[in-house]
Amino acid sequence: MQLRLPTFSTFCMQGLHLTADLNGCQCDGVWLTDAVLLLAHCVQAVQTSGLQAVSQLAHSFPAHGHGPGGVTATVLLAESHLCIHTWPELQAVTVDVYVCNFGADHSAKAHALIDLIVAHFLPQHADRQMLLRGRGELLLN
Amino acid sequence: MQLRLPTFSTFCMQGLHLTADLNGCQCDGVWLTDAVLLLAHCVQAVQTSGLQAVSQLAHSFPAHGHGPGGVTATVLLAESHLCIHTWPELQAVTVDVYVCNFGADHSAKAHALIDLIVAHFLPQHADRQMLLRGRGELLLN
Repeated sequence: MQLRLPTFSTFCMQGLHLTADLNGCQCDGVWLTDAVLLLAHCVQAVQTSGLQAVSQLAHSFPAHGHGPGGVTATVLLAESHLCIHTWPELQAVTVDVYVCNFGADHSAKAHALIDLIVAHFLPQHADRQMLLRGRGELLLN
Repeated sequence: MQLRLPTFSTFCMQGLHLTADLNGCQCDGVWLTDAVLLLAHCVQAVQTSGLQAVSQLAHSFPAHGHGPGGVTATVLLAESHLCIHTWPELQAVTVDVYVCNFGADHSAKAHALIDLIVAHFLPQHADRQMLLRGRGELLLN
Protein backbone atom coordinates (compact mmCIF):
# COMPACT_ATOMS: atom_id res chain seq x y z
CA MET A 1 0.00 0.00 0.00
CA GLN A 2 1.32 3.43 -0.91
CA LEU A 3 1.46 5.84 2.00
CA ARG A 4 -0.21 9.15 1.06
CA LEU A 5 1.40 11.93 3.02
CA PRO A 6 -0.22 15.36 3.25
CA THR A 7 1.73 18.17 1.63
CA PHE A 8 1.06 21.88 1.40
CA SER A 9 0.34 23.63 -1.85
CA THR A 10 3.33 25.45 -3.25
CA PHE A 11 1.04 28.33 -4.24
CA CYS A 12 0.38 29.61 -0.76
CA MET A 13 2.05 32.69 0.63
CA GLN A 14 3.40 31.47 3.94
CA GLY A 15 4.33 34.01 6.55
CA LEU A 16 4.47 34.92 10.19
CA HIS A 17 2.21 37.47 11.89
CA LEU A 18 3.14 38.62 15.38
CA THR A 19 0.89 40.78 17.55
CA ALA A 20 1.44 42.49 20.89
CA ASP A 21 -1.34 44.27 22.76
CA LEU A 22 0.17 46.42 25.50
CA ASN A 23 -1.35 47.81 28.67
CA GLY A 24 0.06 50.16 31.29
CA CYS A 25 2.68 51.67 29.00
CA GLN A 26 5.15 53.53 31.25
CA CYS A 27 7.09 55.30 28.48
CA ASP A 28 6.93 59.06 28.02
CA GLY A 29 3.39 59.86 26.89
CA VAL A 30 4.72 61.61 23.79
CA TRP A 31 5.30 58.19 22.17
CA LEU A 32 1.55 57.58 22.27
CA THR A 33 0.57 60.99 20.88
CA ASP A 34 3.28 62.24 18.48
CA ALA A 35 2.79 60.51 15.14
CA VAL A 36 5.93 61.93 13.52
CA LEU A 37 8.16 60.88 16.41
CA LEU A 38 6.61 57.42 16.62
CA LEU A 39 6.88 56.85 12.88
CA ALA A 40 10.57 57.81 12.90
CA HIS A 41 11.16 55.35 15.73
CA CYS A 42 9.34 52.62 13.79
CA VAL A 43 11.46 53.17 10.68
CA GLN A 44 14.62 53.06 12.79
CA ALA A 45 13.47 49.82 14.49
CA VAL A 46 12.72 48.26 11.09
CA GLN A 47 16.23 49.10 9.93
CA THR A 48 17.82 47.81 13.15
CA SER A 49 15.99 44.50 12.86
CA GLY A 50 17.20 43.97 9.29
CA LEU A 51 13.88 44.43 7.51
CA GLN A 52 13.34 46.88 4.62
CA ALA A 53 10.96 49.85 4.80
CA VAL A 54 9.45 50.86 1.44
CA SER A 55 6.84 53.42 2.53
CA GLN A 56 5.32 54.91 5.67
CA LEU A 57 2.19 56.67 6.91
CA ALA A 58 0.92 58.07 10.17
CA HIS A 59 -2.38 59.52 11.31
CA SER A 60 -3.15 61.55 14.44
CA PHE A 61 -6.58 61.35 16.00
CA PRO A 62 -8.02 64.54 17.56
CA ALA A 63 -8.07 65.18 21.28
CA HIS A 64 -11.32 64.38 23.08
CA GLY A 65 -12.89 64.73 26.50
CA HIS A 66 -10.62 62.10 28.04
CA GLY A 67 -7.34 63.65 26.84
CA PRO A 68 -5.11 63.70 23.76
CA GLY A 69 -5.94 61.55 20.75
CA GLY A 70 -3.99 58.46 19.79
CA VAL A 71 -2.02 57.79 16.64
CA THR A 72 -1.66 55.12 14.01
CA ALA A 73 1.76 54.56 12.48
CA THR A 74 2.41 52.06 9.71
CA VAL A 75 5.55 51.12 7.83
CA LEU A 76 5.13 49.13 4.64
CA LEU A 77 7.93 46.63 4.31
CA ALA A 78 9.43 44.76 1.38
CA GLU A 79 8.53 41.77 3.58
CA SER A 80 4.93 42.96 4.44
CA HIS A 81 4.13 45.51 7.21
CA LEU A 82 4.40 46.96 10.70
CA CYS A 83 1.38 48.75 12.18
CA ILE A 84 0.95 50.43 15.56
CA HIS A 85 -2.14 51.96 17.17
CA THR A 86 -2.03 53.91 20.43
CA TRP A 87 -4.68 54.88 23.00
CA PRO A 88 -3.01 57.38 25.36
CA GLU A 89 -6.11 57.63 27.54
CA LEU A 90 -5.69 53.90 28.34
CA GLN A 91 -1.86 53.79 28.18
CA ALA A 92 -2.55 51.07 25.61
CA VAL A 93 -0.81 50.19 22.35
CA THR A 94 -1.32 47.45 19.78
CA VAL A 95 1.47 46.26 17.50
CA ASP A 96 1.38 44.11 14.34
CA VAL A 97 4.44 42.76 12.58
CA TYR A 98 3.70 40.64 9.53
CA VAL A 99 6.38 39.15 7.30
CA CYS A 100 5.87 36.91 4.32
CA ASN A 101 8.51 34.25 3.90
CA PHE A 102 8.63 34.24 0.12
CA GLY A 103 12.21 33.85 -1.01
CA ALA A 104 13.65 33.87 2.51
CA ASP A 105 12.60 33.22 6.10
CA HIS A 106 12.20 36.59 7.82
CA SER A 107 10.81 35.16 11.06
CA ALA A 108 13.83 35.97 13.23
CA LYS A 109 13.81 39.58 12.00
CA ALA A 110 10.08 39.86 12.73
CA HIS A 111 10.65 38.69 16.30
CA ALA A 112 13.52 41.14 16.68
CA LEU A 113 11.36 44.01 15.41
CA ILE A 114 8.39 43.37 17.67
CA ASP A 115 10.71 42.91 20.66
CA LEU A 116 12.27 46.33 19.95
CA ILE A 117 8.88 48.01 19.58
CA VAL A 118 7.35 46.41 22.68
CA ALA A 119 10.36 47.24 24.87
CA HIS A 120 10.17 50.89 23.83
CA PHE A 121 6.69 51.36 25.32
CA LEU A 122 7.65 49.86 28.73
CA PRO A 123 4.33 48.02 29.14
CA GLN A 124 3.22 46.55 32.44
CA HIS A 125 1.50 43.78 30.52
CA ALA A 126 1.87 42.48 26.96
CA ASP A 127 -0.57 40.06 25.35
CA ARG A 128 1.51 38.51 22.57
CA GLN A 129 0.16 36.19 19.90
CA MET A 130 1.53 34.50 16.79
CA LEU A 131 -0.34 33.58 13.65
CA LEU A 132 1.03 31.37 10.89
CA ARG A 133 -0.22 32.94 7.66
CA GLY A 134 -0.93 31.27 4.34
CA ARG A 135 -1.06 27.75 5.72
CA GLY A 136 -2.15 26.68 2.27
CA GLU A 137 -4.59 24.13 1.07
CA LEU A 138 -3.91 20.71 2.52
CA LEU A 139 -3.49 18.43 -0.49
CA LEU A 140 -3.15 14.67 -0.64
CA ASN A 141 -0.58 13.40 -3.16
CA MET B 1 -15.15 30.90 51.63
CA GLN B 2 -15.36 33.76 49.15
CA LEU B 3 -15.40 32.68 45.52
CA ARG B 4 -12.81 34.63 43.51
CA LEU B 5 -13.98 34.95 39.96
CA PRO B 6 -11.54 35.95 37.22
CA THR B 7 -12.24 39.26 35.53
CA PHE B 8 -10.46 41.05 32.70
CA SER B 9 -8.65 44.30 33.19
CA THR B 10 -10.65 47.29 32.02
CA PHE B 11 -7.46 48.80 30.62
CA CYS B 12 -7.04 46.45 27.72
CA MET B 13 -7.86 47.41 24.16
CA GLN B 14 -10.08 44.58 23.02
CA GLY B 15 -10.58 44.06 19.32
CA LEU B 16 -11.03 41.62 16.49
CA HIS B 17 -8.40 40.80 13.86
CA LEU B 18 -9.50 38.88 10.79
CA THR B 19 -7.09 37.50 8.21
CA ALA B 20 -7.61 35.84 4.84
CA ASP B 21 -4.78 34.34 2.81
CA LEU B 22 -5.95 33.71 -0.72
CA ASN B 23 -4.65 31.35 -3.39
CA GLY B 24 -5.65 30.87 -7.01
CA CYS B 25 -7.20 34.32 -7.38
CA GLN B 26 -9.28 34.25 -10.57
CA CYS B 27 -10.05 37.99 -10.77
CA ASP B 28 -8.60 40.19 -13.50
CA GLY B 29 -4.86 40.35 -12.89
CA VAL B 30 -4.98 44.15 -12.75
CA TRP B 31 -6.36 43.91 -9.20
CA LEU B 32 -3.09 42.33 -8.10
CA THR B 33 -0.83 44.84 -9.87
CA ASP B 34 -2.53 48.27 -9.97
CA ALA B 35 -2.07 49.92 -6.58
CA VAL B 36 -4.25 52.95 -7.34
CA LEU B 37 -7.16 50.82 -8.54
CA LEU B 38 -6.87 48.42 -5.60
CA LEU B 39 -6.67 51.22 -3.08
CA ALA B 40 -9.79 52.89 -4.49
CA HIS B 41 -11.62 49.56 -4.23
CA CYS B 42 -10.49 49.17 -0.62
CA VAL B 43 -11.74 52.62 0.35
CA GLN B 44 -15.07 51.88 -1.31
CA ALA B 45 -15.35 48.54 0.51
CA VAL B 46 -14.57 50.25 3.83
CA GLN B 47 -17.36 52.74 3.21
CA THR B 48 -19.80 50.01 2.13
CA SER B 49 -19.12 48.01 5.28
CA GLY B 50 -19.81 51.00 7.53
CA LEU B 51 -16.26 51.59 8.75
CA GLN B 52 -14.48 54.95 8.54
CA ALA B 53 -11.33 55.53 6.46
CA VAL B 54 -9.03 58.24 7.82
CA SER B 55 -5.96 57.81 5.58
CA GLN B 56 -4.59 55.53 2.87
CA LEU B 57 -1.33 54.42 1.30
CA ALA B 58 -0.26 52.08 -1.47
CA HIS B 59 3.08 50.84 -2.72
CA SER B 60 3.92 49.09 -6.01
CA PHE B 61 6.79 46.62 -6.14
CA PRO B 62 8.88 46.53 -9.34
CA ALA B 63 8.49 43.83 -11.97
CA HIS B 64 10.96 40.94 -11.80
CA GLY B 65 11.93 37.85 -13.75
CA HIS B 66 8.70 36.03 -12.90
CA GLY B 67 6.35 38.83 -14.03
CA PRO B 68 4.84 42.06 -12.71
CA GLY B 69 5.43 43.12 -9.12
CA GLY B 70 2.79 42.98 -6.41
CA VAL B 71 1.27 45.82 -4.43
CA THR B 72 0.53 46.70 -0.85
CA ALA B 73 -2.57 48.76 -0.12
CA THR B 74 -3.51 49.92 3.35
CA VAL B 75 -6.42 51.98 4.64
CA LEU B 76 -6.11 53.41 8.13
CA LEU B 77 -9.47 53.33 9.86
CA ALA B 78 -10.96 55.23 12.76
CA GLU B 79 -11.46 51.68 14.06
CA SER B 80 -7.88 50.42 13.24
CA HIS B 81 -6.78 49.21 9.76
CA LEU B 82 -7.17 47.23 6.55
CA CYS B 83 -4.04 45.97 4.78
CA ILE B 84 -3.68 43.95 1.58
CA HIS B 85 -0.58 42.43 -0.03
CA THR B 86 -0.62 40.82 -3.47
CA TRP B 87 1.71 38.38 -5.26
CA PRO B 88 0.55 38.28 -8.89
CA GLU B 89 3.15 35.64 -9.81
CA LEU B 90 1.41 33.28 -7.36
CA GLN B 91 -2.16 34.59 -7.82
CA ALA B 92 -1.94 35.07 -4.06
CA VAL B 93 -3.29 37.82 -1.80
CA THR B 94 -3.25 38.33 1.96
CA VAL B 95 -5.84 40.47 3.73
CA ASP B 96 -5.90 41.89 7.27
CA VAL B 97 -8.88 43.62 8.84
CA TYR B 98 -8.36 44.76 12.41
CA VAL B 99 -10.94 46.68 14.42
CA CYS B 100 -10.68 47.79 18.00
CA ASN B 101 -13.91 47.63 19.92
CA PHE B 102 -13.38 50.71 22.07
CA GLY B 103 -16.66 52.58 22.41
CA ALA B 104 -18.59 50.24 20.12
CA ASP B 105 -18.45 46.68 18.79
CA HIS B 106 -17.30 46.86 15.17
CA SER B 107 -17.01 43.08 14.72
CA ALA B 108 -19.93 42.72 12.30
CA LYS B 109 -18.54 45.51 10.11
CA ALA B 110 -15.11 43.86 10.11
CA HIS B 111 -16.62 40.58 8.92
CA ALA B 112 -18.57 42.45 6.23
CA LEU B 113 -15.41 44.21 5.03
CA ILE B 114 -13.25 41.10 4.76
CA ASP B 115 -16.06 39.23 3.02
CA LEU B 116 -16.28 42.01 0.43
CA ILE B 117 -12.53 42.05 -0.14
CA VAL B 118 -12.16 38.27 -0.35
CA ALA B 119 -15.08 37.90 -2.79
CA HIS B 120 -13.53 40.50 -5.10
CA PHE B 121 -10.40 38.41 -5.73
CA LEU B 122 -12.36 35.23 -6.64
CA PRO B 123 -9.94 32.91 -4.82
CA GLN B 124 -9.93 29.16 -5.32
CA HIS B 125 -8.90 28.77 -1.70
CA ALA B 126 -9.05 31.09 1.30
CA ASP B 127 -7.30 30.39 4.58
CA ARG B 128 -9.24 32.53 7.05
CA GLN B 129 -8.29 33.08 10.68
CA MET B 130 -9.56 35.17 13.58
CA LEU B 131 -7.57 36.61 16.43
CA LEU B 132 -9.09 38.17 19.54
CA ARG B 133 -6.87 41.15 20.34
CA GLY B 134 -6.17 42.74 23.71
CA ARG B 135 -7.42 39.84 25.75
CA GLY B 136 -6.20 41.72 28.77
CA GLU B 137 -4.46 40.65 31.92
CA LEU B 138 -6.37 37.98 33.76
CA LEU B 139 -6.85 39.42 37.22
CA LEU B 140 -8.26 37.81 40.34
CA ASN B 141 -10.55 40.05 42.36
